[in-house]
Amino acid sequence: MSNETPQNTHPVLVVGSVAFDTIHTTFDKRERLLGGSASYASFASSYFAPTRLVGIVGTDFGDDHIDRFSGMGIDLDGLQRSDSGKTFFWEGRYEENFHSCHTLDIELNVFEGFHPHLPDSYRSTPFVVLGNIQPDLQMHVLDQMRNKAFVAADTRDLWIETARNDLTRLVSRIDLFLLNDDEAALMTDEANVIRAGRALLKMGPKMVVIKKGAHGSVLFYDDHLFMLPAYPVTDLRDPTGAGDSYLGAMIGFLAAEGGTDLPRLKKSLVYATAAASITVESFGCDHLERAGRAEIDARYRRLLEISQL
Amino acid sequence: MSNETPQNTHPVLVVGSVAFDTIHTTFDKRERLLGGSASYASFASSYFAPTRLVGIVGTDFGDDHIDRFSGMGIDLDGLQRSDSGKTFFWEGRYEENFHSCHTLDIELNVFEGFHPHLPDSYRSTPFVVLGNIQPDLQMHVLDQMRNKAFVAADTRDLWIETARNDLTRLVSRIDLFLLNDDEAALMTDEANVIRAGRALLKMGPKMVVIKKGAHGSVLFYDDHLFMLPAYPVTDLRDPTGAGDSYLGAMIGFLAAEGGTDLPRLKKSLVYATAAASITVESFGCDHLERAGRAEIDARYRRLLEISQL
Repeated sequence: MSNETPQNTHPVLVVGSVAFDTIHTTFDKRERLLGGSASYASFASSYFAPTRLVGIVGTDFGDDHIDRFSGMGIDLDGLQRSDSGKTFFWEGRYEENFHSCHTLDIELNVFEGFHPHLPDSYRSTPFVVLGNIQPDLQMHVLDQMRNKAFVAADTRDLWIETARNDLTRLVSRIDLFLLNDDEAALMTDEANVIRAGRALLKMGPKMVVIKKGAHGSVLFYDDHLFMLPAYPVTDLRDPTGAGDSYLGAMIGFLAAEGGTDLPRLKKSLVYATAAASITVESFGCDHLERAGRAEIDARYRRLLEISQL
Repeated sequence: MSNETPQNTHPVLVVGSVAFDTIHTTFDKRERLLGGSASYASFASSYFAPTRLVGIVGTDFGDDHIDRFSGMGIDLDGLQRSDSGKTFFWEGRYEENFHSCHTLDIELNVFEGFHPHLPDSYRSTPFVVLGNIQPDLQMHVLDQMRNKAFVAADTRDLWIETARNDLTRLVSRIDLFLLNDDEAALMTDEANVIRAGRALLKMGPKMVVIKKGAHGSVLFYDDHLFMLPAYPVTDLRDPTGAGDSYLGAMIGFLAAEGGTDLPRLKKSLVYATAAASITVESFGCDHLERAGRAEIDARYRRLLEISQL
């Protein structure tokens, strides 16, 4: 294990997509990078807590990629290696200043038949990250859990538009719902972030986090609010996976702490922001994978320095 | 005096426009409200420090309006009451969600011949707010100062586009330059706020504050950064004067403290944000004028509660 995770922390179960991404920006293009919500989230979580992965890959997913997860100490008992086709593939182009992203190609491949199956050893995991996949698959994971866990889920605009009923049911069953400001507005019909967050809380989750990209993030928890600026990134290369890294680090930290009270939640946002900032400074998972816990901790301290009196 | 300003604080000199504003939003319309950069800035400053006003008004500026400044304890020895015409008038319309504002009518009136003249008693004022007016008028104020003062200046896109040389000269002579994120990008050709702030520091001011509206504000001071979220406003009515209120409260607080070290600067941003949030919750200066120091202090504490670990 490359990461020195404390031995007494709670484990984290990460469920989501594992993919190859081809990414175009106005500066550069990279082909078939390791990506997917579960990859980013599990890499980030693994810096804090023992991390278990549930996902599916195809015939083109070589041992070199498997080794990247193993190298981070991630438990792969829940990773299905399918012989029936290739790994989920996505190709997208970010417009200037990363204000929007257009999908150029999407090939679901083995992901089309994905039914997340939890190994028996995973079913009591106390902290669960439901990365961005279809809400019915996210719910299918919850149905397999044996014990009450702390469950955090991400989503995206596509599911709000095409699977709102499923998503609403999912949201009523989870502890933490995480989404970006555009998605929050789409889901609540409230352009004001504060109103949107409060409307989302009424849908059932104990906590809501709204991410605002370069403008930071906001936690809603009962009547509490916590607003944190983004880390001051000056060389944004590729925003892919920022939200997944954020969620993975946030829940990894809470699992390591074994508690979700307000002071720990506030700290978890700082760690989440630190991890996301590392991800966006390079294409794909590379920088996040290489960073090491010390770099995350350094950014945690720097973010406190620039946001606290 | 309605405000209980400490007796030992330094006074603040505010120079800028005094105007009547007719404001359209998607919800409402209000006619001939008291406005202008100097009105908002002096009202906000007066909650913290003795405040002196330099500006010009015309024949339509009645004693009822004069009384509003006097009622806030503002020294009006520097307010020119001209017989040659009417007061500066502006009419504008905010689009949905206040993302943009269009000028419908502008009548400079007596403001066209305005040459800010500082009464002798004002020329040693240790803290100076140069509200948003032409950069050459802002410089004309500095030329009349007898002693080295802490000088803060605001600007707007119009002066960046039409008077960039004057503005650049002004900026090299001041201590604090304050502008919004669009203006910072326009002036530096840097879309990234962190890069823009650092580029502005190189133009000469000791400090730069970039305002991001609902996304908060950022202070640049030597190598230091301080990022503060906006106050969580859920009922934005009229953003006019938010930046002027911000600057007035910021410098008012620093004058009251008599120092501009980093811990005080950080606190000044919190007070500035509190004052701006009060301004935008009603049309014109009304809410800011009625609020009282206790409401500003309550918002200061609330903003710390939601932004500090």
